[in-house]
Amino acid sequence: MAKLIFRYGVMSSGKSTALLQVVHNYVEKGFKCLLLKPSLDTKGGHKVVSRIGIERPVDHSILKDTDIYALIEKEKPYAVVVDEVQFLQPNQIEQLYKITKILNIPVLAYGLRSDFQMKGFPGSTRLLEIADEVEELRTICDCGKKATQNMRLLNGVPVFEGEQNIIDDKTDISYKSVCGECYLKFKGEL
Amino acid sequence: MAKLIFRYGVMSSGKSTALLQVVHNYVEKGFKCLLLKPSLDTKGGHKVVSRIGIERPVDHSILKDTDIYALIEKEKPYAVVVDEVQFLQPNQIEQLYKITKILNIPVLAYGLRSDFQMKGFPGSTRLLEIADEVEELRTICDCGKKATQNMRLLNGVPVFEGEQNIIDDKTDISYKSVCGECYLKFKGEL
Amino acid sequence: MAKLIFRYGVMSSGKSTALLQVVHNYVEKGFKCLLLKPSLDTKGGHKVVSRIGIERPVDHSILKDTDIYALIEKEKPYAVVVDEVQFLQPNQIEQLYKITKILNIPVLAYGLRSDFQMKGFPGSTRLLEIADEVEELRTICDCGKKATQNMRLLNGVPVFEGEQNIIDDKTDISYKSVCGECYLKFKGEL
Amino acid sequence: MAKLIFRYGVMSSGKSTALLQVVHNYVEKGFKCLLLKPSLDTKGGHKVVSRIGIERPVDHSILKDTDIYALIEKEKPYAVVVDEVQFLQPNQIEQLYKITKILNIPVLAYGLRSDFQMKGFPGSTRLLEIADEVEELRTICDCGKKATQNMRLLNGVPVFEGEQNIIDDKTDISYKSVCGECYLKFKGEL
Repeated sequence: MAKLIFRYGVMSSGKSTALLQVVHNYVEKGFKCLLLKPSLDTKGGHKVVSRIGIERPVDHSILKDTDIYALIEKEKPYAVVVDEVQFLQPNQIEQLYKITKILNIPVLAYGLRSDFQMKGFPGSTRLLEIADEVEELRTICDCGKKATQNMRLLNGVPVFEGEQNIIDDKTDISYKSVCGECYLKFKGEL
Repeated sequence: MAKLIFRYGVMSSGKSTALLQVVHNYVEKGFKCLLLKPSLDTKGGHKVVSRIGIERPVDHSILKDTDIYALIEKEKPYAVVVDEVQFLQPNQIEQLYKITKILNIPVLAYGLRSDFQMKGFPGSTRLLEIADEVEELRTICDCGKKATQNMRLLNGVPVFEGEQNIIDDKTDISYKSVCGECYLKFKGEL
Repeated sequence: MAKLIFRYGVMSSGKSTALLQVVHNYVEKGFKCLLLKPSLDTKGGHKVVSRIGIERPVDHSILKDTDIYALIEKEKPYAVVVDEVQFLQPNQIEQLYKITKILNIPVLAYGLRSDFQMKGFPGSTRLLEIADEVEELRTICDCGKKATQNMRLLNGVPVFEGEQNIIDDKTDISYKSVCGECYLKFKGEL
Repeated sequence: MAKLIFRYGVMSSGKSTALLQVVHNYVEKGFKCLLLKPSLDTKGGHKVVSRIGIERPVDHSILKDTDIYALIEKEKPYAVVVDEVQFLQPNQIEQLYKITKILNIPVLAYGLRSDFQMKGFPGSTRLLEIADEVEELRTICDCGKKATQNMRLLNGVPVFEGEQNIIDDKTDISYKSVCGECYLKFKGEL
């Protein structure tokens, strides 16, 4: 029986690189592998772009009301890979689950676990609740410890209030991956 | 820096046994290790009881409004272990996080990830969002695959509607750990 | 296809407890699960005994020349669990592999990874090379870090020379689980 | 205390991609990260090349008698990353261990676990015995299951006898990653 796997990690943990490698492995073996990305993520346009210098066109851009189950049932791929899965809706995550159990097609979803305020993204939270396997992709904080939080910077200065979804593209917003200790220090709670 | 670790598993996956082993390992080395349990879980009274035949008294029963951070700050243990963590409140999970980062005391929390309807418990969901490490304790379904769902039985018959929190103690309610495929088959969706 | 799984850990990491829980989970569901133990390990006699206070009789004591494949082919259990697997011979580990692939019966093997001199046990080394999954059971060093080494004590004093296999039963030999740093400090190399 | 981490995987599991991402993450943060590769591996020359299309020059080519500990003690990097670690000598693996414990510099080593005959490479075997953490990088077999074996092909035909170390570069030798079941089928044992 196919599995729904959630591989989460903070920004710059290498999620896109890992995802592109997985797609590459399937395609190299001649398996049809569909690459999906929520339309909400406009960074990179209709491509998944890795900081390390590789990219791949997205097969389907997913809208808020896209029925992913119907899409996959029609396309019948060997496997499904989702980038930036945190931007999917909770009911779309349940569609991913049914894709694995009813259609028996594996789904590997990559994304952030929580936002710059340590709040879950609704899509990621639903995934954490129902994924068959949950794995972490790791990177380090400037202090050397494992980074677990996505700190938001406004013109380079840490901020802890604001909207959840602001893409770090063509704005004065950027993100920095830090450990929980450094996060609380920047926030003045430690 | 101390970590907040969430070890989740379905019913009968051996969570209590694993937890009691961890407490045993700390205590054997002479470390003060506090064992906490939400008061909502009345099974076993003020003890953690494992099906395999071992038990241990709980050090503190946690009410809905207990300030766990204040409790631990006062007690200053070497480590904190929590049983049935799914019954804690989300803000109490945030207290556990601060215990690890501000007091530098490790917290190991054991519990269910989701209920009989595949919905998250608010406490577990918050843990999945912020825990430094998330690990699964596994057991098998009757069919041999990994069990991931807690199916509720009313007088032995699977039911898929009802309240979230009913302890399987002195009632006609019981639970069965099944894989996602068997769960959907029992539910008539597969 | 069934898997050969190696769960290793230092002494006192809770291997026997975890193993007994696994056997319990199988038996509780009505599955025939065979518990094997090398005859070389005389501690506990024909039982697996956990420090936490639980035990279970061993189904088969394995000699150096026991053909485990033939034994399991005849017994046809649902699953096989092996305690103290480090005392098996490398060719017996290969028999375990064939049990999983040819007979399609899962094998879960628990044991030490390396001895008091940081040398591998031949059986464990072969398992590390071919097991389908390798997982670590963890416990802590007195210093709080993860214990990874089994330090041998002679009348309570650390020793770093001697035979590989001396059971800590009715002798003046005992063992202490320590982290790599403390191990090298005791050894005078750090 | 720094850790010695072994990330193993079969051929084409994405080891080089994952390794280059790790180096990238360190360098991007301004940390000095040394990339080492045994001289025995002549594929790609003095570079690590990933099938997915990225590469990076190697900082040091390691000979059979290179004292890696002395090299790192002199260079004092923030972290050490090793590609094709299976070609190091066992005593060089012990040098890596001391680098982490005495110099407190983390070492991440990537490589194969076993050869085309399911025999361990001496360097990898030593790593499996002493690494602080052992993790698997996975890919799939043509049959869809997890690939765990490196099957050797001579002009496209599976062979099960021969020397351990033949690089698949400018020869009639190639390798195919398969699951244990398919491996035994090709070998005629299943």
